[in-house]
Amino acid sequence: MSQKVIISLDAMGGAGAPDSVIAGANIARNHHHDLYYLFYGNDRILNDKISYFPNLIGNCEVFPTKDVVSDEEQPVKALRSGAESSMRKAIDAVKDGFASACVSAGNTGALMVMSKLVLKEITGIRRPAIIGIMPTQAGEGTVMLDLGANAVCDENNLFQFALMGDCFAKAVLGKQNPSIALLNVGVEQIKGRDIEKKTYDMLKRSSLNFVGYIEGHDLTKGEVDVVVTDGFSGNVVLKTAEGTVRFLMGLMKEGLTGNTLTKVGGLLVKKSIKKALSGVDPNKKNGAMFIGINGIVVKSHGSASAEGFANAISVAYDLVKRDVNKQIAKELDLMKDISSKFNIVDIIKEKSAKILGLK
Amino acid sequence: MSQKVIISLDAMGGAGAPDSVIAGANIARNHHHDLYYLFYGNDRILNDKISYFPNLIGNCEVFPTKDVVSDEEQPVKALRSGAESSMRKAIDAVKDGFASACVSAGNTGALMVMSKLVLKEITGIRRPAIIGIMPTQAGEGTVMLDLGANAVCDENNLFQFALMGDCFAKAVLGKQNPSIALLNVGVEQIKGRDIEKKTYDMLKRSSLNFVGYIEGHDLTKGEVDVVVTDGFSGNVVLKTAEGTVRFLMGLMKEGLTGNTLTKVGGLLVKKSIKKALSGVDPNKKNGAMFIGINGIVVKSHGSASAEGFANAISVAYDLVKRDVNKQIAKELDLMKDISSKFNIVDIIKEKSAKILGLK
Repeated sequence: MSQKVIISLDAMGGAGAPDSVIAGANIARNHHHDLYYLFYGNDRILNDKISYFPNLIGNCEVFPTKDVVSDEEQPVKALRSGAESSMRKAIDAVKDGFASACVSAGNTGALMVMSKLVLKEITGIRRPAIIGIMPTQAGEGTVMLDLGANAVCDENNLFQFALMGDCFAKAVLGKQNPSIALLNVGVEQIKGRDIEKKTYDMLKRSSLNFVGYIEGHDLTKGEVDVVVTDGFSGNVVLKTAEGTVRFLMGLMKEGLTGNTLTKVGGLLVKKSIKKALSGVDPNKKNGAMFIGINGIVVKSHGSASAEGFANAISVAYDLVKRDVNKQIAKELDLMKDISSKFNIVDIIKEKSAKILGLK
Repeated sequence: MSQKVIISLDAMGGAGAPDSVIAGANIARNHHHDLYYLFYGNDRILNDKISYFPNLIGNCEVFPTKDVVSDEEQPVKALRSGAESSMRKAIDAVKDGFASACVSAGNTGALMVMSKLVLKEITGIRRPAIIGIMPTQAGEGTVMLDLGANAVCDENNLFQFALMGDCFAKAVLGKQNPSIALLNVGVEQIKGRDIEKKTYDMLKRSSLNFVGYIEGHDLTKGEVDVVVTDGFSGNVVLKTAEGTVRFLMGLMKEGLTGNTLTKVGGLLVKKSIKKALSGVDPNKKNGAMFIGINGIVVKSHGSASAEGFANAISVAYDLVKRDVNKQIAKELDLMKDISSKFNIVDIIKEKSAKILGLK
């Protein structure tokens, strides 16, 4: 019998918790029979609700926690006051080796700050990032980072994001040599800000499969495996795409309930359209990883449905099975020489510029 | 008889030119009977094609130009070599007072650089910006800027964008006191980069109707009238939304052509869905203004259909009718005191910091 995949769940985080967490855990376990859960939260409520899911009984443990990190809590404050929270205890379980991954639909900022403090950065990684898979027209989606951990970045951060994206795409999408693109406002080399140009140069000289710039309207085409950008732009892209999907789904619903004829037609196509769009529904397609730390922490959408939370658990499951962090450490080691060379080049440039009176 | 609204058209710019330009001009004229066009381009081809549109004959003039600015041309190079181009001549027509506005589907960068050189900034405006209307769930859409003219901005630029957005929303959406929001990665005051925080403070103290931060997923809700951001983020938002719309339309098409039953249903709902989505189709909803210069220059999507180009002409028409630039100059004048106060405050802060050894 193969070993169980043990995942710790912050059962109190997110708008639908704990119901969507429990029901989601149940759905995910129907797909992956080797899943075993550690639920953290109000044990009385959890034990009661879990008793309705025969599939979960005997395949999970419930650990009582006293506290919940609210969505409004400032991350740093949550860090201080949330030592006994369901979120913190679920992360601790990863650090202590009881679980291989943690999933939470709670406060994103708090989850990041806590994960970083408890699990620490992978040696060599300066800035952990939020990474996720955007649904695309062709293929299984495009890996994108940073989705919001670092509003301001420098070219060294973006270079490391590319490196982590490469490992993630290898592990989760099973790509041999993932193609990597840098988000920009045009595809010509002179386009964009200073940071895009500098990162372009670094990536071009690296051994990564860098294919150049990509623009917003090409993100959903699925022509590249990884898209790299700073946390401000990444967050804006992710949320804009989500908002647009919700907007269009609403429009379509209206379009299908007009007169009697369209109502009849609507009934005939409803299921088929629903199916076609299920891959892009933000409530279902779900699960972003906080990458660059010593442990797997997956963030589910705060408003995810049970199906959505199940999706986040499945992402965590894949990351455990494919040992993504080991891959990152390995690749970092390979890149170490190249990375340090870049820094030296930059330092020399900087210094010469100063000596020459250019700065 | 009221005066005609004369619009100069770069008849050679864009993927569908000159056909989409001519057909688009014809459509727009069906809506606005006081439109009169100056076509710039290959006169032999233009005269031939225009002869098929009775609605245009007698309501336009064709001016022969020798050159076309290609989409690949670098803006600065286009400026030097494109003095005889259809684009340049169409802009010149605005400067020389022959036309009240110019519309082009050509090279965006070249159009901006040429417009700025020929028409010059409105006195007091540091950076012109690209402004457009995003379709929304409720209301007539949200005005957004900068959509790509300035990849890097400072808080003074963003403050002026808010000012111009305010005037544009008053003129085009007919709002009395437009609500203005700043794009960010969260709505809490501490979220975002330095530039967001500084702009937030300036807008909060201004007489504009500033309502705070807005996140990507709320952009399509239509809850605010104007959204302000830098040209990098604005361009990324615009293109991501466009790409997502195209992606979903494709998915839906697939969904509607599955089995016989969904095919029948598809036929029944096709028209109704098409109608519901027509407001968000990037090929149709179209037309961004280059705001902050002494003249009205509207940029159409390079790949716009005839209907899309007609939409861009209609935007130009509205801007002429509502005299948007006069409004901006007026508002700038009103704001002058406040604006200069800000600069002084900043200068004092900067100086005191230096004196105190904080910088």
